[in-house]
Amino acid sequence: MDENHLRVVLNSSKVLNAWLTIPSTWVAEIFVNSKFQAITIDMQHGLIGYSEARNMLQVISPKTVFPIVRVPWNEPGIIMKVLDAGAMAVICPMINNKEEAIQFVKSCKYSPVGSRSLGPIRSSVIYGTEYAKSANDYVLALVMIETKEGLENLDEILDVDGVDGVYVGTMDLSLSLGISDLGNIYDDTLNKALKTIISKVKNKKLIAGIHVNSSNVKTLIEIGYDIVTPINDTKVLIDGSNQIFNEITKIMNQEFNK
Amino acid sequence: MDENHLRVVLNSSKVLNAWLTIPSTWVAEIFVNSKFQAITIDMQHGLIGYSEARNMLQVISPKTVFPIVRVPWNEPGIIMKVLDAGAMAVICPMINNKEEAIQFVKSCKYSPVGSRSLGPIRSSVIYGTEYAKSANDYVLALVMIETKEGLENLDEILDVDGVDGVYVGTMDLSLSLGISDLGNIYDDTLNKALKTIISKVKNKKLIAGIHVNSSNVKTLIEIGYDIVTPINDTKVLIDGSNQIFNEITKIMNQEFNK
Amino acid sequence: MDENHLRVVLNSSKVLNAWLTIPSTWVAEIFVNSKFQAITIDMQHGLIGYSEARNMLQVISPKTVFPIVRVPWNEPGIIMKVLDAGAMAVICPMINNKEEAIQFVKSCKYSPVGSRSLGPIRSSVIYGTEYAKSANDYVLALVMIETKEGLENLDEILDVDGVDGVYVGTMDLSLSLGISDLGNIYDDTLNKALKTIISKVKNKKLIAGIHVNSSNVKTLIEIGYDIVTPINDTKVLIDGSNQIFNEITKIMNQEFNK
Amino acid sequence: MDENHLRVVLNSSKVLNAWLTIPSTWVAEIFVNSKFQAITIDMQHGLIGYSEARNMLQVISPKTVFPIVRVPWNEPGIIMKVLDAGAMAVICPMINNKEEAIQFVKSCKYSPVGSRSLGPIRSSVIYGTEYAKSANDYVLALVMIETKEGLENLDEILDVDGVDGVYVGTMDLSLSLGISDLGNIYDDTLNKALKTIISKVKNKKLIAGIHVNSSNVKTLIEIGYDIVTPINDTKVLIDGSNQIFNEITKIMNQEFNK
Amino acid sequence: MDENHLRVVLNSSKVLNAWLTIPSTWVAEIFVNSKFQAITIDMQHGLIGYSEARNMLQVISPKTVFPIVRVPWNEPGIIMKVLDAGAMAVICPMINNKEEAIQFVKSCKYSPVGSRSLGPIRSSVIYGTEYAKSANDYVLALVMIETKEGLENLDEILDVDGVDGVYVGTMDLSLSLGISDLGNIYDDTLNKALKTIISKVKNKKLIAGIHVNSSNVKTLIEIGYDIVTPINDTKVLIDGSNQIFNEITKIMNQEFNK
Amino acid sequence: MDENHLRVVLNSSKVLNAWLTIPSTWVAEIFVNSKFQAITIDMQHGLIGYSEARNMLQVISPKTVFPIVRVPWNEPGIIMKVLDAGAMAVICPMINNKEEAIQFVKSCKYSPVGSRSLGPIRSSVIYGTEYAKSANDYVLALVMIETKEGLENLDEILDVDGVDGVYVGTMDLSLSLGISDLGNIYDDTLNKALKTIISKVKNKKLIAGIHVNSSNVKTLIEIGYDIVTPINDTKVLIDGSNQIFNEITKIMNQEFNK
Repeated sequence: MDENHLRVVLNSSKVLNAWLTIPSTWVAEIFVNSKFQAITIDMQHGLIGYSEARNMLQVISPKTVFPIVRVPWNEPGIIMKVLDAGAMAVICPMINNKEEAIQFVKSCKYSPVGSRSLGPIRSSVIYGTEYAKSANDYVLALVMIETKEGLENLDEILDVDGVDGVYVGTMDLSLSLGISDLGNIYDDTLNKALKTIISKVKNKKLIAGIHVNSSNVKTLIEIGYDIVTPINDTKVLIDGSNQIFNEITKIMNQEFNK
Repeated sequence: MDENHLRVVLNSSKVLNAWLTIPSTWVAEIFVNSKFQAITIDMQHGLIGYSEARNMLQVISPKTVFPIVRVPWNEPGIIMKVLDAGAMAVICPMINNKEEAIQFVKSCKYSPVGSRSLGPIRSSVIYGTEYAKSANDYVLALVMIETKEGLENLDEILDVDGVDGVYVGTMDLSLSLGISDLGNIYDDTLNKALKTIISKVKNKKLIAGIHVNSSNVKTLIEIGYDIVTPINDTKVLIDGSNQIFNEITKIMNQEFNK
Repeated sequence: MDENHLRVVLNSSKVLNAWLTIPSTWVAEIFVNSKFQAITIDMQHGLIGYSEARNMLQVISPKTVFPIVRVPWNEPGIIMKVLDAGAMAVICPMINNKEEAIQFVKSCKYSPVGSRSLGPIRSSVIYGTEYAKSANDYVLALVMIETKEGLENLDEILDVDGVDGVYVGTMDLSLSLGISDLGNIYDDTLNKALKTIISKVKNKKLIAGIHVNSSNVKTLIEIGYDIVTPINDTKVLIDGSNQIFNEITKIMNQEFNK
Repeated sequence: MDENHLRVVLNSSKVLNAWLTIPSTWVAEIFVNSKFQAITIDMQHGLIGYSEARNMLQVISPKTVFPIVRVPWNEPGIIMKVLDAGAMAVICPMINNKEEAIQFVKSCKYSPVGSRSLGPIRSSVIYGTEYAKSANDYVLALVMIETKEGLENLDEILDVDGVDGVYVGTMDLSLSLGISDLGNIYDDTLNKALKTIISKVKNKKLIAGIHVNSSNVKTLIEIGYDIVTPINDTKVLIDGSNQIFNEITKIMNQEFNK
Repeated sequence: MDENHLRVVLNSSKVLNAWLTIPSTWVAEIFVNSKFQAITIDMQHGLIGYSEARNMLQVISPKTVFPIVRVPWNEPGIIMKVLDAGAMAVICPMINNKEEAIQFVKSCKYSPVGSRSLGPIRSSVIYGTEYAKSANDYVLALVMIETKEGLENLDEILDVDGVDGVYVGTMDLSLSLGISDLGNIYDDTLNKALKTIISKVKNKKLIAGIHVNSSNVKTLIEIGYDIVTPINDTKVLIDGSNQIFNEITKIMNQEFNK
Repeated sequence: MDENHLRVVLNSSKVLNAWLTIPSTWVAEIFVNSKFQAITIDMQHGLIGYSEARNMLQVISPKTVFPIVRVPWNEPGIIMKVLDAGAMAVICPMINNKEEAIQFVKSCKYSPVGSRSLGPIRSSVIYGTEYAKSANDYVLALVMIETKEGLENLDEILDVDGVDGVYVGTMDLSLSLGISDLGNIYDDTLNKALKTIISKVKNKKLIAGIHVNSSNVKTLIEIGYDIVTPINDTKVLIDGSNQIFNEITKIMNQEFNK
């Protein structure tokens, strides 16, 4: 297996991941040329459909940055399509139990582990004609744990053959656990959940990813998370725009009205 | 004329303008919902073609933010197309002399000032069926002064009937004036040029726009510039990405290698 | 809750809705600037995929006209995507029983009513950062009643918590009821069905929408329908083209052969 | 030469032409399936760029309907591109004199008449590999006469070898002639102009096209115009939407407020 | 029923089918103008989403070539969408048993055979307003037999009312049957499977399609296959590029390094 | 200057170039992964507009293959746009004399050689922030010699400072020279022209490129041409489709009628 695969790299190091929600190949290229090591194209909450996700995958050279896709749902058609188009890892939202995990793995892995259909059109061009033979080894199937139910069923989910790890949806998990300060990793309930998850994942020698503010990256890496995502393209634009506007207002000592 | 037009607003206040280079309607909407009062779609150096510029104009409600387009060149076809699609102002690069200014005005204004062809398909829907009657009054034709030649010919350019103002390209102007520290407004030569320009423009009671770092907004507004552009979408993303990466590196006390 | 939401407006008045099937932001804008109060983007039978639906939502300012989407099917991925992109109401085809209604509501409403995933990227920009808190109240989940089975199970469907109303598919319902004159609201069987539906919906204080010819708008509004859809973009173009051609043929007293 | 070419058909009959301004292949297909014999894709005032014009040409089978393109301007690049993409005729706006007409013909016709570059990629696939040999004969170069200057210089324009006819822009011509009731063909000045034009064109045995209301088709055909355009897609949608809304308002005896 | 439908043609002759994976209307048009009689747009492994599939269907005039779509998955939304957009036949991947076949037929056929929703927007324009009445007769629902399970359940699958035939996925079937030389039709196990399939299909007087190398077309047609697909656009480009490069290398007696 | 630039490579070796006319990022990627060293995106005769050219440039990593663009015409706007988007060389059609060559160079090179406007948005991201400083050295401005006039004025054209070489349009040149067997390099007149061109170009130590059949690559390289283009994507598809169809017809001993 190629040394330069996300799975291989994760054996020895952590990965900083950028989260893209803007349907734009140029935004993707900006992040390809940033220092982040992986890029996740968010087809669930991002404003990105298949056509744009494919175009964005096409500008991500896997020799430079690892392409990950979060699919909109646990639906076989779209999962197989993004894998055929070159995704190295798929993150699937809202996996709540063993059955859903099995269904997801079936879409991600070739027989005998799953029943992914054969025809990796772009992947065999960019990863080599032998792609299909080793794809089960290096394509990562990551289940999102983001509900109370998913958390309770974590053991049976992690037991499913072909599940390579989890990705924690802190916002949805907070909501589902009834935490009002959504996504605050120092909230007792959420904090405990995050620790429970990493402990179970690591016992299984699997991979764990998570959304995080940049200030919390260190904490989450130290407790064991492998893929951390401290940046979101839409948020960078909104924050950057506010920041520059506020700087000017302050210097001018005056509001600009709109 | 509608009180809510860029030209009217400029009579009494300054306008902070955001500069868009990403071909994306979502990026445009983010800035529509920011505090900036105008948006310029940069079809010259931005990665934006006509199809994308039109789509971006379509998400900019002129009641919320003023839509400006910088065209790729002084070419009648594209100038008329962006005006028909709803641009309130057109910025034209590289106007060096009277002849080029006249040619530009011909594309921007209806007879008798110019020879813009009649057919404001989207403009008459969004600005009202009477659009064509008053368009010569409120559509702004802004010439870029960004070469030594343009600077030298500024008087004759400003004398052209239908020229509504200038937009200063500080980078190109620096290059053309042989200034090594491109775009430094405190460089003597550039500083003098910027003052000469504003003085001549204001003598004619015309409008002046300029690119500027946020820290220089105050200075340029104080010497008289009307439209100042302290923000660029691509730059916000690159800077934001570097900043977050560096914060993490600092906290982690460790480099992440790619 | 904002006074200017479809749900609020429906408390006191009827809504005329335009039905869009052409994948075009310009057609959408034409209807935004028409007198119709709501626009439905038809992703089921219209020639509109997600990418185009998103672009069309982006040109519909919810302060001017209410954006509704009919999704292609009761599939969680697409339902959540159009809601995150700004749809104020979702119409779901072919709801036949309680189970399907529950599944639909799960996609439309946040916990605890449903399990919509949190991440309203565009909705939180255009409706405000508090969007998620009140979304369950103002996002409308409308089930299509368009089969014999759906009609028979209407009571149990309307009993599902989170169902906000119905939208009647007169064509499919006719087909399913074995009515040959498809969509004729004066056919006894169909007429009775339409009255049964409105009666049950109004008993539950829910909302009812329906397709209708302009000549029948009055009738259906009088028996209680709230959202009536008398116009379809493709049909306007086909009818308009025929009408103009026929006028000319008549005046010319001559056929033009093709 | 193929009997089924626009030029051949025009020898013996008049052609009703539909004018498209919406960048949509579906709208194009609706008109392909209408009774109109020709379709003009308006890249000047329509919201259509090259990418959309090409896609629209691709859905117009020239065996069913004649594809015409109005280009945005007398610019060689775009004229040659639409011809290579299958346009059977090109309408060029704002031809005011002999020099502009010569420049236009150079872009439309192969050597020795003009200097169109060889490479008719789509045209040679859809019209046959012999396309280039007879293209000068059947591709129509139509100049727009829509200014006072163009009208005055009509003789010298029509004398240019390779000019196949004119297309009259009644709106712009009215504007340029100082007629306030834009486009009213019964205005004395405009009426005289239209008659002068057709007389000169027919003396040269060339082709004349014109925009027209459906009620005036007969008049203009009778005085000799060959291609008449009584329909515009955007207008059909706006008029159709108003008409249906008004019908309902009348029946309901009530306004719907927005 | 129109004599010119795929189903009718298949009564008396075999059909050579081209397989498209490139999201491009121009590639589609090249094949429309080739000698192949049918075109399959592969939305499963091809890099084609709904938006591109629709555009490609729009350039395929069904009077010239038969449009077939392989959908990404057995999902009602997408199946109905491609049928409404003009597909004459749908190939559905991975049908393994009776239940899946029934589900597929429900999406393909109108009541009473299935429950396809009524609204054939483009199909009724290009096939005529009577389309819906005869659609059940001429739209082909083809199930892919490409797993061991599907092969074992072939009888019950073929018994499902509304299944019109099969399409054999030789690659996936090989994989599922544990054959290492994927897709080799002379492998004993695969060869036997192909014969079993055709025998059962022909007993039911149904249709059989298959992927095949051009050298094997004769063999498979002789044993009864009706639709054979010997060409794939991506493969033509890769093979053609290699072939020309190798010819040059041979003539030059030299390698060109990259 | 980076060792890996087209200009540097051309110092010591010949370059095989693939010519793209299909507006498709996937076709581009197929050729990026082929053995050809350079790719030319043909915006003149290819069916490619700016939006698609930009997208295609985005999938061409200049570390793998050299991106060249043939622009539609000698128009400053589009030339600067493709350079800002990452083109390493620009081929300009129909350069007939010194004035046109000067105009072309002005668009390609920064001051003081030309007057290209500063703002290399994508180029500075992919080639490094120092791009603008060395761009004049490594960006190639190649003029097409494809008319009798251009051939006659070759000396004055090559004398223009900033012209880096020529690209011979054999088809148009044949047409202009009155050669009936278009593009036959063994025709005496054409053959002599090709030799004259290479001799003059090499005297000036400039670069020469040319279209060529694969069988003539050796001949043209031996007489000195540097960039040879033996492959065209549309042609590969048409030829490949015919070849496979003919193979089958031959094996079947039967025609398939369409």
